[in-house]
Amino acid sequence: MQRRGLLIILSSPSGAGKSTMTRRLRVWDPTIAFSVSATTRPPRPAEVDGQDYYFRTRPQFEAMVQDGEMLEHAEVFGNLYGSPRAPVEANMEAGVDTLFDIDWQGGQQIKQAMGDDVVSIFILPPSMAELERRLRARGQDDDAVIAGRMAKSMNEISHWAEYDYVLINADPEVCEAELRAILTAERLRRTRQVGLTSFVRGLGNEHEESR
Amino acid sequence: MQRRGLLIILSSPSGAGKSTMTRRLRVWDPTIAFSVSATTRPPRPAEVDGQDYYFRTRPQFEAMVQDGEMLEHAEVFGNLYGSPRAPVEANMEAGVDTLFDIDWQGGQQIKQAMGDDVVSIFILPPSMAELERRLRARGQDDDAVIAGRMAKSMNEISHWAEYDYVLINADPEVCEAELRAILTAERLRRTRQVGLTSFVRGLGNEHEESR
Repeated sequence: MQRRGLLIILSSPSGAGKSTMTRRLRVWDPTIAFSVSATTRPPRPAEVDGQDYYFRTRPQFEAMVQDGEMLEHAEVFGNLYGSPRAPVEANMEAGVDTLFDIDWQGGQQIKQAMGDDVVSIFILPPSMAELERRLRARGQDDDAVIAGRMAKSMNEISHWAEYDYVLINADPEVCEAELRAILTAERLRRTRQVGLTSFVRGLGNEHEESR
Repeated sequence: MQRRGLLIILSSPSGAGKSTMTRRLRVWDPTIAFSVSATTRPPRPAEVDGQDYYFRTRPQFEAMVQDGEMLEHAEVFGNLYGSPRAPVEANMEAGVDTLFDIDWQGGQQIKQAMGDDVVSIFILPPSMAELERRLRARGQDDDAVIAGRMAKSMNEISHWAEYDYVLINADPEVCEAELRAILTAERLRRTRQVGLTSFVRGLGNEHEESR
């Protein structure tokens, strides 16, 4: 059945499982596209333009914003970040779903811009102790950085009520199954299946001819 | 997670698989309740009051309608049929989903009365030839009755666009998996999980205490 591609916004505090879930969803359904952000931040070693980010100069980025080519954008620590519109709209027309790994601010802007085509999902940790345990398990950060991340997580969590779906990630298997169910269901919404009108017209013609 | 029970409206033309899907869904999740209709039609042999139908006199039924005790009702071939409100509201409060096996008219009335708590699903046949094959396979009806059922099916199908979800039942296994996904997803909608506010408050308290 021909359908419009979805815009899937997946948000969560750091450590609640967003990256793992993004990876698993794309294994489950490799047709899901990932929205690559544009940024004015300089590339780090090994980062590839067009794959990790679209690296742009500030004037280039600002021209894209001016021309309405960004679905959302924000400035973070002096660098601009945004989601280019063109690849997303091409996906939608082709019936390809696009996954956005963005925070609540970006999610809100995309929801405002794209409305009914957006499905937003927030992943909560089962507890703050578990969130902290997961952050520490990465072994990258000292106590002060962890404390900062936890405060940032609480801020992100405070926007849970702006999302369509809320999952509590106590078990990654369950969380993945829930995400799959949400995508399967959203694809079956009448408004998403643009081929339904002609399908039902076909049933009507078949009925007329058999009489 | 504490949540409100859903009102699940499942409609389809006769032969598209509604009864089979209803049965399978209740095997999958035995907590799903089934809305038992009230009717003024006299009981047939072996029909049990309160199980197959609530059998009521016309004055009793009309009093229920007057008192707002019916979520929907209609007159069919001189008999009144309706869905009593009380058991459904008790289910909703208890977080139990209620399944309605009703036609588009009943579905529309329930949607108007209960709004956001309603999830409506329409099941289409893959083709009219397949629908006719399934009706004939039952071996109950002659050609004239089949033709009448097919015409009635076309009328029911013409209301597909009033439903939230539309499924094409070409394979009962796929159709069942899709129905499960829809119910799983709808239960995860933020607005359905009434326990989320206190859960997130708990995360906040935990964060405060750990600082």
